[in-house]
Amino acid sequence: MKIASEDDILGLLSRFFPVEHPALLLGRGDDCAVLKSQGPVAVTTDIFAEDTHFRRRYFTPFDIGFKSLAVNVSDVGASGASPSGLSVGLTLTGNEDEAWISDFCEGMKAVCDKYALALSGGDLTRSSLLNICVTAWGTLPDALPRGLRRGVAKEGDIIFLAGSVGLARLGLTLLESAETPEDVRQVKADWPKACAAHLRPEALAFDGMALARFAVEHDAGDRMGLMDVSDGLARDLPRLLASRITGFGADISLAENALHPEILRHAEKTGADAPAFAFEGGEDYALAGTCPEKLWPSLSRALKAPTLVLGQVKKGEITLNGKKPVSPGFDHFSR
Amino acid sequence: MKIASEDDILGLLSRFFPVEHPALLLGRGDDCAVLKSQGPVAVTTDIFAEDTHFRRRYFTPFDIGFKSLAVNVSDVGASGASPSGLSVGLTLTGNEDEAWISDFCEGMKAVCDKYALALSGGDLTRSSLLNICVTAWGTLPDALPRGLRRGVAKEGDIIFLAGSVGLARLGLTLLESAETPEDVRQVKADWPKACAAHLRPEALAFDGMALARFAVEHDAGDRMGLMDVSDGLARDLPRLLASRITGFGADISLAENALHPEILRHAEKTGADAPAFAFEGGEDYALAGTCPEKLWPSLSRALKAPTLVLGQVKKGEITLNGKKPVSPGFDHFSR
Repeated sequence: MKIASEDDILGLLSRFFPVEHPALLLGRGDDCAVLKSQGPVAVTTDIFAEDTHFRRRYFTPFDIGFKSLAVNVSDVGASGASPSGLSVGLTLTGNEDEAWISDFCEGMKAVCDKYALALSGGDLTRSSLLNICVTAWGTLPDALPRGLRRGVAKEGDIIFLAGSVGLARLGLTLLESAETPEDVRQVKADWPKACAAHLRPEALAFDGMALARFAVEHDAGDRMGLMDVSDGLARDLPRLLASRITGFGADISLAENALHPEILRHAEKTGADAPAFAFEGGEDYALAGTCPEKLWPSLSRALKAPTLVLGQVKKGEITLNGKKPVSPGFDHFSR
Repeated sequence: MKIASEDDILGLLSRFFPVEHPALLLGRGDDCAVLKSQGPVAVTTDIFAEDTHFRRRYFTPFDIGFKSLAVNVSDVGASGASPSGLSVGLTLTGNEDEAWISDFCEGMKAVCDKYALALSGGDLTRSSLLNICVTAWGTLPDALPRGLRRGVAKEGDIIFLAGSVGLARLGLTLLESAETPEDVRQVKADWPKACAAHLRPEALAFDGMALARFAVEHDAGDRMGLMDVSDGLARDLPRLLASRITGFGADISLAENALHPEILRHAEKTGADAPAFAFEGGEDYALAGTCPEKLWPSLSRALKAPTLVLGQVKKGEITLNGKKPVSPGFDHFSR
């Protein structure tokens, strides 16, 4: 069915996202929605833009809806907050029909359902490229009023990873090289985990929340660092350690057997250095954190995602498996 | 100066918007910012997109920054909340230099300063057209947990307008017809108030807050309707009255002497019906409200903006000066 008006689209959205929600005092349909405020509110915004963050050639509408929200939920979880709602600025091109928008909503709803998120509202407009700008929020324990943050590490702290890295970069690389619909199908069939990691990343928000509870129980909020690895470890670890200010680095170990078999299979084909490939790859939405060495055994047991000790904080540069990594990661504005 | 990296842009933003702010427990620079929660939080999102909502031909970067935020603050104020912060999803084209971004920031800062808003963070990306997606929030009194809303009117209620309508539509009409930079300068010189209304609309948030205080003092929150007139009275009044559900309408009176002289001057030149032009015009960000007749005298004194009684709620259609208005207003997706 063709879409004839904004009301058609809003009507469609209402089929997927209830107007009333326990997290809201007032739902969609007015100038503002009103959130129940139950403690400090962690808030984040991420844009998901066509031909910058995704291509329609290989992203289904479901994938677009899913990932545009998942990347935000990842940020909320990485602050230790319990995700509770979102507002969405949706720029469509006017060529999306009812089936497209429904599939998009299904993708967004899959993430909403996992965390019981409220869609509080948003805005709808039309332009030449799709642009989905989500602002998501969650609540923090009163005892952790600033959440789990970057830049709190001290020398000797453990640097850990929850989740895995490298798969999303592999998915992106392979899907970008797939030109025809048949190529895309083949890549998705041959490299299912890599493609899934790029198209539908799983935010590790429950693990972030578990770390927040752990921090409160151990009164360790100011000594536990956390962030999501959205731009790749090469770019994000210096942020986690606040290296520019602290001068901290680490000798990072990332063994081949810590990487997904699809990464190893691809590295074998191309001759790439698999750990370096994974270290530089972004968009995995794993969690990287720091904690005092003595907390690590109990802290690691609090996490559901597979964990890995990457190294320990020390003065100096960041090296990978004994070599200095070279790629600075991705920057939208560098030339 | 050319912009070489995201960090250049973030550095620029920090010159205009302090990272720490009394409304924030944690400022920009982490996965999430954290808001102090001091009562129910009203939240809204509005997209401001190039060639859909504005054109660079006649919007300065200052105007773009100003209006992208003002339209959101208007929504917060129209719910009766006190605006306190924003998050911005900023899609640039990569051709904006330091002067452009600074001017944009100045425009946004002008609105921030008026309400002491915190810029809690956001996201930055690059695409072929500018797209500024702002999510803004404010706090409501505990005694008004759902804010001031639409659809609460009863028969006989006063329908009022705070602020004026029609000027922004006139500004848009004239600026759209100005093709060269010289034309634009001439239009801005000849029609200063109309252009200002379109380029830098003033949100009436202090008036919205005054109405919220009035509602609390008079225990009248459930009987006072309020919304901002962003899409024009013709389209917004049925929303204010929830006409589709209630069957309410009104015989609206809008006299020529209630309109700005520039509107009358333009109507005289073109032979247009000035009140109909103003009634159908959008983007003025005036406030339209409803209240019981007996509250009106004291309520009108609570407002700083000029006010006008438009009519009284009754069963039936909405008419304007004895005639049925015809235009349905603007819809991005209608063809």
